[in-house]
Amino acid sequence: MRILFIGDIFAKVGRDLVKRAVPALVAARGLDLVIANGENSAGGFGITREISKELFDTGIAVMTSGNHVWDKREILAFIDEEPRLLRPFNYPAGTPGRGSTIVTIADGTRVGVLNLMGRVFMTAIDDPFALGRAEAERLREHADVVFVDFHAEATSEKIALGWHLDGVASVVVGTHTHVQTADAQILPGGTAYCTDVGMTGPHDGVIGVERGPIIGRFLTGLPTKFDTASGMPRLHGVIVTADAATGHATDIERLSLTPTDIEDLR
Amino acid sequence: MRILFIGDIFAKVGRDLVKRAVPALVAARGLDLVIANGENSAGGFGITREISKELFDTGIAVMTSGNHVWDKREILAFIDEEPRLLRPFNYPAGTPGRGSTIVTIADGTRVGVLNLMGRVFMTAIDDPFALGRAEAERLREHADVVFVDFHAEATSEKIALGWHLDGVASVVVGTHTHVQTADAQILPGGTAYCTDVGMTGPHDGVIGVERGPIIGRFLTGLPTKFDTASGMPRLHGVIVTADAATGHATDIERLSLTPTDIEDLR
Amino acid sequence: MRILFIGDIFAKVGRDLVKRAVPALVAARGLDLVIANGENSAGGFGITREISKELFDTGIAVMTSGNHVWDKREILAFIDEEPRLLRPFNYPAGTPGRGSTIVTIADGTRVGVLNLMGRVFMTAIDDPFALGRAEAERLREHADVVFVDFHAEATSEKIALGWHLDGVASVVVGTHTHVQTADAQILPGGTAYCTDVGMTGPHDGVIGVERGPIIGRFLTGLPTKFDTASGMPRLHGVIVTADAATGHATDIERLSLTPTDIEDLR
Amino acid sequence: MRILFIGDIFAKVGRDLVKRAVPALVAARGLDLVIANGENSAGGFGITREISKELFDTGIAVMTSGNHVWDKREILAFIDEEPRLLRPFNYPAGTPGRGSTIVTIADGTRVGVLNLMGRVFMTAIDDPFALGRAEAERLREHADVVFVDFHAEATSEKIALGWHLDGVASVVVGTHTHVQTADAQILPGGTAYCTDVGMTGPHDGVIGVERGPIIGRFLTGLPTKFDTASGMPRLHGVIVTADAATGHATDIERLSLTPTDIEDLR
Ligand SMILES: [Fe+2]
Ligand SMILES: [Fe+2]
Ligand SMILES: [Fe+2]
Ligand SMILES: [Fe+2]
Ligand SMILES: [Fe+2]
Ligand SMILES: [Fe+2]
Ligand SMILES: [Fe+2]
Ligand SMILES: [Fe+2]
Repeated sequence: MRILFIGDIFAKVGRDLVKRAVPALVAARGLDLVIANGENSAGGFGITREISKELFDTGIAVMTSGNHVWDKREILAFIDEEPRLLRPFNYPAGTPGRGSTIVTIADGTRVGVLNLMGRVFMTAIDDPFALGRAEAERLREHADVVFVDFHAEATSEKIALGWHLDGVASVVVGTHTHVQTADAQILPGGTAYCTDVGMTGPHDGVIGVERGPIIGRFLTGLPTKFDTASGMPRLHGVIVTADAATGHATDIERLSLTPTDIEDLR
Repeated sequence: MRILFIGDIFAKVGRDLVKRAVPALVAARGLDLVIANGENSAGGFGITREISKELFDTGIAVMTSGNHVWDKREILAFIDEEPRLLRPFNYPAGTPGRGSTIVTIADGTRVGVLNLMGRVFMTAIDDPFALGRAEAERLREHADVVFVDFHAEATSEKIALGWHLDGVASVVVGTHTHVQTADAQILPGGTAYCTDVGMTGPHDGVIGVERGPIIGRFLTGLPTKFDTASGMPRLHGVIVTADAATGHATDIERLSLTPTDIEDLR
Repeated sequence: MRILFIGDIFAKVGRDLVKRAVPALVAARGLDLVIANGENSAGGFGITREISKELFDTGIAVMTSGNHVWDKREILAFIDEEPRLLRPFNYPAGTPGRGSTIVTIADGTRVGVLNLMGRVFMTAIDDPFALGRAEAERLREHADVVFVDFHAEATSEKIALGWHLDGVASVVVGTHTHVQTADAQILPGGTAYCTDVGMTGPHDGVIGVERGPIIGRFLTGLPTKFDTASGMPRLHGVIVTADAATGHATDIERLSLTPTDIEDLR
Repeated sequence: MRILFIGDIFAKVGRDLVKRAVPALVAARGLDLVIANGENSAGGFGITREISKELFDTGIAVMTSGNHVWDKREILAFIDEEPRLLRPFNYPAGTPGRGSTIVTIADGTRVGVLNLMGRVFMTAIDDPFALGRAEAERLREHADVVFVDFHAEATSEKIALGWHLDGVASVVVGTHTHVQTADAQILPGGTAYCTDVGMTGPHDGVIGVERGPIIGRFLTGLPTKFDTASGMPRLHGVIVTADAATGHATDIERLSLTPTDIEDLR
């Protein structure tokens, strides 16, 4: 089976790329499942009910997220009723929403999806290593394939989690830095791994945001107001091929598509 | 002209890759200059006088570094006499060693090399944005091409500095995360840019170190002793083509070479 | 001479304490100069033109600040014209406002006031140690007494700066943690020192803010909206006696005054 | 009943203060129980079996600790057999040692002792708020009085935990910053609280360490070797009076004793 995973969808630029790319990629590449990280889909900060609908309507089956998931406070009003929208699993007990789900695709294959978040240089929440492994093992019992989005900053934490889940999860990919890494690979235990899948949105700024004010903030130490950038739109993601019989991944391919690349798919 | 830049050389595994690869790449790719980051060359932590000689002897002309440069305290005894070994320029006044240099290659082209270090999630030193831009401009006055190694953690800081020096430096590449990023590109002002060049050493561990103890530390919060990893050796770097007449880069190519790839170059 | 320094004035509760206390303390204790940290005086976040006037009208001669000084963006419109309102001196060149001033009191004694900010666990700005010492020495040449407010988080950084300026500054006191420390003392070189002077405002919350949402945020990791707390109002500060002839401090006394204590002063 | 709690015992200077002070204070102040934080007792870093014996022999009944507890690796060989030596309770499952204990004093009163560690600006371990409250409640069921040492950096986290356990624990005091705070008080629910109890050892350095190299490190950003400081020895702690019938504290008194003060007790 083939899974497309799309890196952090950033603002309208990102959503527009997704709307054009998802149907085209599903058709052109014979995809069975589309998963995307939506934590920046509403103006770069969080996600709304309407935007989540808009994105699910493009063909995304499950949406993961990360530290920005709570930025639009209306999410607290709908995350409990939307099982397809995950927040990191290792938020503490009592946090609204859920951190994992199982979806069944057309041919009956069940895919567990698990969203985890790192703690190095980030907010202290519960341990993604212990909880992540236990939940990946639990999903594995009920699903043929297990997909993990590890939203984290430090490369050491991401690589370590990849090894920790090697052979347990079918796929461990990272998000959050908004820069795609060149280390997509199949680990020895059969887990597809990539430190960061990248960001789907404008790439002429700084991780999605207009570069002028960000450079100004680095130069002055003063807080600044940011607008989202708008140029160099690019969809970042990976396509993973997994064997539903063994639960192992057999291939992982990085995607970095311009609008023209997406038109050419049609 | 063509410059090879090699990402953080890690321990003996990394040095062995460099010894075999540098002469082969110089010949096969017609390189004019080799620069490398050596902050992890001595057992993963710092650099010694002997190891720096060993590495310069392979054909490396200038060595940059980063936060690990002081790990072996003997460096304080020789860094002042070794103009080819840089420490980050934005350490405060009075810090031993220097942070930039100008080398003249065979055809007379002068190349300024500047080493900077980030501050986000790292030690607070002087500002890499203000100082880095001033020094890049100064080097530009005395050199045809300006090469910058920005040793930093956060993608936002690295991308912002790339834009800040676009058109001033010929090349801005990042190091420190030990994971190569897939965003090598020529910015609109003519600066070759890549968020992180990666790490030259063992890739079956966690950023160079055996994975077992690192996973243990994430699971327990306890300090652990680390050994360097040894498998999956890989040389990471970039080859940049620059135009000495304009000071602009015209091409940047990522390298990720296995020992077999290196043998095949000969 | 006697200087009263008031710790971070927090919201209206803090301003009300100041309005009643300053005139009473000036009279009761024979004060020559009143300095206060005003970074939280506007609803806990920053300061406005009107609030700064209100506070100067109570008898405060110089106001220092810290990381929160820019929270109300209108400060950018007036800080350049208000020499009595300092922002940390070690913000980089080009930052609006100034970080030090010299005031002359009734008997002709000149007092230099210097505001510095730490970097440990805080934003990376310029070095408070090197710049702070140079500026304290410069002020010393033009003033009889030098007062330093070091706005910083880590006790190690604050204590180290105290020793670094011992004998150069007449007074080095810390702010920012909003908790008064019990280590007020005269260092061997003649500098009055206290790691943190505390906070002037409501003490039934968490550093000024209602405790419920803060505890909730620690329990859930979710962002929350904060209101300012309102109970247990207390003015925190120190009274320092300094010898204008030597520039040395001879006494430092901690203050923690309830509204009743303040009434009793009248 | 009266409990003496001694703040972080630092190196030999700290141990010498403890040896002289504990018997004298027990006699002079009619103490029923002595608890101390021993994380820095072995040369400033960790604790050894021999030093723990030495300290228990002075009359200390329970020792708490913090982030430095693992510095001397031999602790792993004895912490499991030494129920009187606690490490923070909220280290993850599987961590050697224990984080709470119950001791019975001469008159039969049972005192639960709980050691917690913060996460703000510190290593990410399990949640001290949720786990800390649950364990404090459990101890309360089996003990008359519950004593909590919260080893943490940020004042916000410490104050919030104090309020969170108000009425559940009899005492919540902080350690780790090595600076005593002036906010010892009884919270409305009956819990004695103090943000930081301070450090027992040399106070002429920077949190226990010689000041020269620390100032040097702040000025240069370079790593430096530290020796322990030796002058201005001072025992820091609190004496708490608690009512075993209600589990509430009725008084908390700060201690900051010089060697002379200790001699005068005899
Ligand atoms: Fe994101
Ligand atoms: Fe994120
Ligand atoms: Fe490195
Ligand atoms: Fe590094
Ligand atoms: Fe403040
Ligand atoms: Fe502050
Ligand atoms: Fe300590
Ligand atoms: Fe500690």
